[in-house]
Order: sequence, then C-alpha cells, then structure tokens
Amino acid sequence: MQIIITGGAGFLGQKLAKALLKNPIEFDELLLVDVIMPGVPHQDERIVCKQVDLSDPGVAETLIRTDTGLIFHLAAILSSHAEKDFDLGWKINLDITKQLLEACRQRKPGIRFIFASSLAVYGGSLPKEVNDTTALTPRSSYGIQKAMGELLVNDYTRKNFVDGRVLRLPTISVRPGKPNLAASSFVSSIIREPLHGEQTICPVDPGLGLWLSSPDTTIANFIHAAQLDPAQLGQWRSINLPGLGVTVREMLNALEKVAGNSAVGLIQFKTDPAINNIVGGWPGQIDNTPALKLGFKADLHFEDVIHQFIESDRSQV
Amino acid sequence: MQIIITGGAGFLGQKLAKALLKNPIEFDELLLVDVIMPGVPHQDERIVCKQVDLSDPGVAETLIRTDTGLIFHLAAILSSHAEKDFDLGWKINLDITKQLLEACRQRKPGIRFIFASSLAVYGGSLPKEVNDTTALTPRSSYGIQKAMGELLVNDYTRKNFVDGRVLRLPTISVRPGKPNLAASSFVSSIIREPLHGEQTICPVDPGLGLWLSSPDTTIANFIHAAQLDPAQLGQWRSINLPGLGVTVREMLNALEKVAGNSAVGLIQFKTDPAINNIVGGWPGQIDNTPALKLGFKADLHFEDVIHQFIESDRSQV
Repeated sequence: MQIIITGGAGFLGQKLAKALLKNPIEFDELLLVDVIMPGVPHQDERIVCKQVDLSDPGVAETLIRTDTGLIFHLAAILSSHAEKDFDLGWKINLDITKQLLEACRQRKPGIRFIFASSLAVYGGSLPKEVNDTTALTPRSSYGIQKAMGELLVNDYTRKNFVDGRVLRLPTISVRPGKPNLAASSFVSSIIREPLHGEQTICPVDPGLGLWLSSPDTTIANFIHAAQLDPAQLGQWRSINLPGLGVTVREMLNALEKVAGNSAVGLIQFKTDPAINNIVGGWPGQIDNTPALKLGFKADLHFEDVIHQFIESDRSQV
Repeated sequence: MQIIITGGAGFLGQKLAKALLKNPIEFDELLLVDVIMPGVPHQDERIVCKQVDLSDPGVAETLIRTDTGLIFHLAAILSSHAEKDFDLGWKINLDITKQLLEACRQRKPGIRFIFASSLAVYGGSLPKEVNDTTALTPRSSYGIQKAMGELLVNDYTRKNFVDGRVLRLPTISVRPGKPNLAASSFVSSIIREPLHGEQTICPVDPGLGLWLSSPDTTIANFIHAAQLDPAQLGQWRSINLPGLGVTVREMLNALEKVAGNSAVGLIQFKTDPAINNIVGGWPGQIDNTPALKLGFKADLHFEDVIHQFIESDRSQV
C-alpha cells in the first residue's frame, strides 16, 4: 500500500512521516509531496519525496495509484495568510481538496482520506459549549475554506468515492522553529521564544481562552483516525479532535513553573486587532466526549506540553 | 440600476420578474438569464432576456455592469438531479455561484446578492427544533452544494465584495406546471394533479412533516430580502425563511376540504426510497422567530395555499 502526505514538507507532515515509519500501519511507499521539496524525515527506502504544485491541473491525478490506500491531506494556506491573500487561500485550501478528492474518485474509489480541518471552522457568536451540533459560521476565509472542505469530504464519503475522516485540529502548541502565517502563531511563540531566551510579543489579552493540542498528541490522533474502522464512525465524518482548554495566563503560569520568572519576563503584551479578530472568535472549549469515545487522546496539563517541547527541542540539537 | 435574475426562465424567476415589474424597487433594466431563453413575463421595455450558460468561462463577468445593483441568484440543479448527475450539480450549484461572486468582486464590489439556498442544507440527525444555530450536515449533494454556496456568500460579504443575503427556502408548494427534478416535486404534485383531475403518486409516508412556503409568499420574501438595510442584518447572512409546518396527511385533509373526497382518491401511495432518503432527512419545523423579526412572512393555513394555487391557475388560462 502507498500512503500519501500532502504538505509533506511542513512541520506536521514531517512529524507524521516519522511516526508512520515506526509502522503503526503497514505500507510499501510513503509519498511526501509539497510545493517545496520535502526533506527526508528519516533514512528509509520506502520514502519518496516529490516537489509538485497540487494546484496545477492534472497533478493530483498523477499521484494516486491503484495501491494508494491512505492520504493525509495536510497542505494548506494558514489563517492569516489566507486572510491577506484571498485568491491563494481559495486555490490551495478549497480547489486542491476538490482536485484530490476527484482524483481519488476517478482513479481508485474508497481511499481512506484524512482531511486536516481546524477549530477555525467555528466563529461568530458561539454557544457556551461548542460541540458537534454547533453551526459553522467562521469569520475568516481560512475557516470558511476549511468548512467547505469538510462538506466536500463528507459528500465524497457518502457517495463512497473516498472513505473520509475530517479532523478539526485544536491550535497546536508548542510548534518548534520560526513563527508561521497562522493567526495562532503566537500560541507557540510565547512559550518557544522565552525558552530560547528570546523576547516575543503576545498580541492578545491574557484572559483569552485557547483550545490546544500538543504536536505528539495531534500526530497520534492522525494515526488513530487512519486506523478506525468505517463501522465505528457515524455517517457524518467531521470530528472535533480533543483539546486542552487553557487561557493565555494559565499558559504563562505553566511557563513560569517550568522555566522561571525570567522566561515570562521576555513576553511583551501588544494587542494586534487582526489577530484578536480571528483567534478571539475561535472556541476556547469544545465538547471532547464524542472524540474520546472514538479513542482519540487529549493533553491533560499544559506543563507536560512544555516539557514535551523541551525534550523534542533537545533531541533536535 | 440594473437587476439580474439568474434562472430567469424558471418558475420562480418568471414570477419574481413579474413582481418586480410592479415597482417595489426602482430599476432601469431587469435582465433575465438562463441556459434556455427566458420568456418575457410581461411586456415592459425594461426587460432584457439572455440565453447564456453561466458555467462558460468569463460569462458571469460579461453580465455585471457598473450600474448593476441587485442580483437574484436562483439558477440551480435541483436535488434529485444533482444526486443523479454529480458533476453537473457541482458545476452549476457551486462553481457558478463562485464565478458570479467573483465577477461582482472584480467589476463592482458591494452589489446586493440574494442567494437562493434551501432547507436541504439540513439533514442527518437533527434536533427537535432546527434553528439558526443548528449544524449543517446535509445528506444530499444538492444540500452540500447549497451549504457551500452559503459559506461563499458569507465570506464575500464579510470582505465587502458583495452585500449578500442567503435565503433558505422552505419547500415551495403548490408549484404550477409539470413535476420537476426536485426530490420534493411530489409536494406540489399531490395537490396540483388531483385539482386537475389527474392521478398522482405520493412517494412518502402520510405522517412525514414538511416545511412549506407558497409561491406568493416566497416571492414577497425575496423582494423583502432585497430591500432590507444592511444594518438590519447581522454579520452572518444566512436566513431561514419562515415556513408552514404540515404533514402530508394535513395537506390531503386540506385538499379534501377544498376539492372533495374524489380529489384525494386520485393519490396513490407508493414509497420511493431515494426520495424518502432525501426529503425524509429535511426538517419539518424550523424556528421562524429571527426571520419574522426581520419582517419576512409565512403562510398560515394550507387551505389558503391551495386557494392561492387555484386562483393563479385560473388566471393563467
């Protein structure tokens, strides 16, 4: 069986590839594709890396083979970026998703199709408890595009063109590396930069509630989603991945416990209205129950999430 | 000002045009477009009819002028048709909507854009009372495409590319003419055909609840939607038009009162699983309150709806 990861050069794509090489799922080839050439995450002859632009006509179809069994569709234009470059957001976040689904339908119906959606599909005036029955009224183009992608995957699944599973990701923290073009980039920066002894800016109010998942937990949930039997899933395939609800203040308290007062002192508060608009509209708490019942996992304490980052940071050096 | 009606050859398009000629809204030109040449609903020099395929590249842009102020986007592939011809459904119900919105954005941002959506955006396991906060999990491609169109119109509105208003139409009854390719076509047939002395088939259980709007009420609501000030509308522009909740049995009781026992005797019950699947998944009752507050109207008694049909049928002869 061939497994495909789109967005294979990204942080999640690379981390997912590494986890798959530990053989939770049997496969013969793991194809990483991205607009920039994906790095080889680990020496393994089953890995193939390709630099392709999935938005070029016909490209999606060239990737799907008769032995393709599983696609992780992670490629995306992130929230702030999609807000600034409206056309690019539509092209990558919606059109490519359609083209990939269509390629599956044409070349090999029934492929397990894992679509990375986001809590950004929620927005506007939300009830106290957001859950699977809450209407999606996103206030960002990224959220709109992801919500439309979810509908697509669900319809292609109903028609048996793919066996889709939509994962609504919480905000991922702590991401390694540099800030990215997600409006939620600060959710990692306010931990990562101080741990590296660097100054950083927090663009939101410390009282803001966030809904988080650590990188390790997120990757474990991706692999779990791919292993679930269709019979375990309902007809509607959009799943709110479990998260950890914390305020920015609670994150900083955890940072202080782990790294001391001086670390927190490196954070400057300076409100950014554009970021506040987007991230402030996301839910800070979502009902975890259905996903936990399906066997997905959540992080329990933000201190543990910080320790996870420190360990993984150390092993990179 | 120019007004455009897409789907201008259809029953609703023609009826809307006639209502607009009574000047509830001032305009200089009323352009009716459709894939078949729209009839001239009434002799009036302000009417222009064009036969165009909106799915042809570039066509949408040729329609929008600097004096275009209002578009009623009614063109659609109906539910059973979109279920049978998957590709055509996407092309007409989603792609054309995007192309029209894009043409507005490029040629004249801010056009009032009325999008005909449908109660078919609801489906799957629904709560007892469906309302604006209910998640959209449609179980038909038509419903999925309309739900995606709604998201599009909302995002283009948030960006000020159009001034969008999404109207989720109840099932319209009693439509004149012949059965169409909507899964709900029977909702008109079971009244219309017996009134014409013709036999017909009811493909669903008499206990099934339906959510209806008469043609006159629907057209009045379209015109009301076009007249609402943006300040009266919230940020989220999807509106559940008010409806009348009745069971098939209640409809037939009303028919009996109006036209006697012999009319009802012309109806044969024969379940059609495909139609049951689609229409049975739609809500039979939606919370009317927000729309009534905005000044939209609902029909109150199904007997009146039958009389409305008889009157309009008589005036056509």
